[in-house]
Amino acid sequence: MNRRHFLGTLAASAFAQSRAPRINAARLRRHIEELSVFGRPAGGTFADGVSRIAYSDADVAGRAYVTKLMETAGLQPRIDAAGNIFARREGTENALPPVLFGSHTDSVPNGGNFDGDLGTLAAIEIMETLNEARITTRRPLEIVDWQNEEGYAFNNGLAGSGAVAGHLEKKDLDAVWNGMRKAEAIRKIGGHPERIEEARRAKGSFACYLELHIEQGGTLDRAGIPIGVVEGIVAIDRYDVEVKGFANHAGTTPMPERQDALLAASQIVLAVDETVRREPGRQVGTVGQLNVSPNVPNIVPGSVKLVVELRDLSGKKIAGLAEQLRTRIQQIAAQTKTQIEMKAAAHHDEALATPEVQTSIEAAAAKLGLKSARLPSGAGHDAQMMSLLGPMGMIFVPSVGGISHSPKELSRWEDCARGADVLLATVLDWAAR
Amino acid sequence: MNRRHFLGTLAASAFAQSRAPRINAARLRRHIEELSVFGRPAGGTFADGVSRIAYSDADVAGRAYVTKLMETAGLQPRIDAAGNIFARREGTENALPPVLFGSHTDSVPNGGNFDGDLGTLAAIEIMETLNEARITTRRPLEIVDWQNEEGYAFNNGLAGSGAVAGHLEKKDLDAVWNGMRKAEAIRKIGGHPERIEEARRAKGSFACYLELHIEQGGTLDRAGIPIGVVEGIVAIDRYDVEVKGFANHAGTTPMPERQDALLAASQIVLAVDETVRREPGRQVGTVGQLNVSPNVPNIVPGSVKLVVELRDLSGKKIAGLAEQLRTRIQQIAAQTKTQIEMKAAAHHDEALATPEVQTSIEAAAAKLGLKSARLPSGAGHDAQMMSLLGPMGMIFVPSVGGISHSPKELSRWEDCARGADVLLATVLDWAAR
Repeated sequence: MNRRHFLGTLAASAFAQSRAPRINAARLRRHIEELSVFGRPAGGTFADGVSRIAYSDADVAGRAYVTKLMETAGLQPRIDAAGNIFARREGTENALPPVLFGSHTDSVPNGGNFDGDLGTLAAIEIMETLNEARITTRRPLEIVDWQNEEGYAFNNGLAGSGAVAGHLEKKDLDAVWNGMRKAEAIRKIGGHPERIEEARRAKGSFACYLELHIEQGGTLDRAGIPIGVVEGIVAIDRYDVEVKGFANHAGTTPMPERQDALLAASQIVLAVDETVRREPGRQVGTVGQLNVSPNVPNIVPGSVKLVVELRDLSGKKIAGLAEQLRTRIQQIAAQTKTQIEMKAAAHHDEALATPEVQTSIEAAAAKLGLKSARLPSGAGHDAQMMSLLGPMGMIFVPSVGGISHSPKELSRWEDCARGADVLLATVLDWAAR
Repeated sequence: MNRRHFLGTLAASAFAQSRAPRINAARLRRHIEELSVFGRPAGGTFADGVSRIAYSDADVAGRAYVTKLMETAGLQPRIDAAGNIFARREGTENALPPVLFGSHTDSVPNGGNFDGDLGTLAAIEIMETLNEARITTRRPLEIVDWQNEEGYAFNNGLAGSGAVAGHLEKKDLDAVWNGMRKAEAIRKIGGHPERIEEARRAKGSFACYLELHIEQGGTLDRAGIPIGVVEGIVAIDRYDVEVKGFANHAGTTPMPERQDALLAASQIVLAVDETVRREPGRQVGTVGQLNVSPNVPNIVPGSVKLVVELRDLSGKKIAGLAEQLRTRIQQIAAQTKTQIEMKAAAHHDEALATPEVQTSIEAAAAKLGLKSARLPSGAGHDAQMMSLLGPMGMIFVPSVGGISHSPKELSRWEDCARGADVLLATVLDWAAR
């Protein structure tokens, strides 16, 4: 660009920055700190993280705190049949579908204070900011605190958003975890399991779903970029692999006679890594779980079970990697005189963020003078359920060191505030459309 | 050799065969079958194997059966302070140290009917055979049923023979397993823990210790050779290896940023195999135990603990292999960005069989017209404890398919009888010296 054009862009940007309303960073921080006490280890501090498992007493207390903040912001929160907390702020054209945004406040055991909490409390902060700036949007706004995003309880993540997308049925309510039926769990947090289908929302019932979240990976932190524009949530394929060799005495079985299941399994672990790294791209492949049988020092392992997990924004790409792996595994079986079975165990499609929402977030960041970068989300989020019902976009802020699901999870306060400001600007953009 | 010499050898062999007393193969089989009911799974058959864990009620019943067989053979069994069952048959020169032989009748959980049982019952069968043949040996003979050879109880194998070799001390008696003190366990089988040191025997207190046992490996079975002459019991070194990486989200941690402990551990498993196979010889190396943490499909493994076990007749050789492995492990650590610690956890010296005893066993097999082959014992045996006190030798018979510590453990009845005949001939050789 020539110099004149460059100066013109700068001026427009400075003008835009001055116009954009900003959230109250100190209040947002205070709310995150206040929420952190619910589920904090006894005698601990903020740095000791939180265990706010869905449906636990700590979760109930955390949700009560969130509800109170919504009320303080002049809203009238309601709990839907599935147990999600919603609150609406009217616009000037209330027949239009609202802009929906929020996150969750449940955590994994020994989790951190930012995963979910940031997006939920930033949504409330935006309502406060709009109140104070006396801004009334064209479309109504709706914020949400989804229940059981993490899925530690009932091994069923995205539970609340899944119910809204129509993924929770009456028969699922009989599942039992920790001696508690799912129906009971939902009732405990104020939901109405007997009319669970009322939680379902129709396609087109919102103009756009937005979610601010910590990255959980280290890409933004390493690059020094404050705003991530999520391209989509990756597809996930899981395979259960079982290696059958022959358990025999480690002292009396000569090396050439062995059918060592762990020797074969170790080659599979390396093959997953090699197969995934061989191609360019951001795909990942993991063997996170591996169990040896009989698992005693003086017996050649007779069998090994392991789980291979592949992730990428392109489901087609990981299906291709799995095929390569299948071929390699048959070679390993032949070479190690073992039998190996690789069975598809779980499949989640990718959920691409809507291009117009990505552009809107990028523009919002630019208006605020913040660098942004597009990146995939390697972790699952409630946003993927909402993408089934309408336009969806996510904003990431940096996780220091890429650490999450740990008390060491940390996002800098200034980055939290920047993310909330970008969310606010994006909400205003979509509320005006 | 020329033809005349060949015929002469044949004739001498035929002559020798006719002179050698033979055990009663049918009676030996019957005793093995009768012993097999103690610890047999409810409703099972001989083919379902046995769980006759030391100090269990099944072990007590099995030992009572052995005691009764000894009495039927005209002997007066006695239980020593450690709980081993001994029985002596007088010779013509009873001031001489006896020839000692036997084995054990405890088993691993879900074990087979030959490991230990064959050697113990063959010893009794030899006493019966000598009675019927009205043979009185020069030296007295002594047979033994060692307690807790397998060491499943108290994680302490060769317990009875170890006590005789001076490896069991009063303070060890406080060990607790399954809610039972070791002192109690020894008392349960008729021992006297309060005077445990009386179980100890002096060097030179026997002329020779002999043990008939199943091979547990497949070398003899594959070669079609009925008699194995054991060269010694291998040295065993165990190393505890701990790999420390960094546990992180499998979806959000790009491949180049990972410190995957399982990826490093898998390379160690392969390195053990490669290091051991690279050199000629019969050494073996095994990773039989490996535990991943946190061991969930969607977290990059943060740490792995595994056990490396190396065995060879030469302790020096496996020490050299361990050094090679240590170097390789440091390369793996650097390459995978992990920290790896390899700590010596256990060391057992090799126990070489006495050359004169090996020659005697070979000659006995040849006299009986049986092929034999020398081989190491990859498994531990009570014989290694006895090698600390005097001359020692072991006779192996084939294990079909090399299977042991399994209900599928099998040695053919004719091979069992052949082994017992070779034991008898070797006993007579040493009793005459």
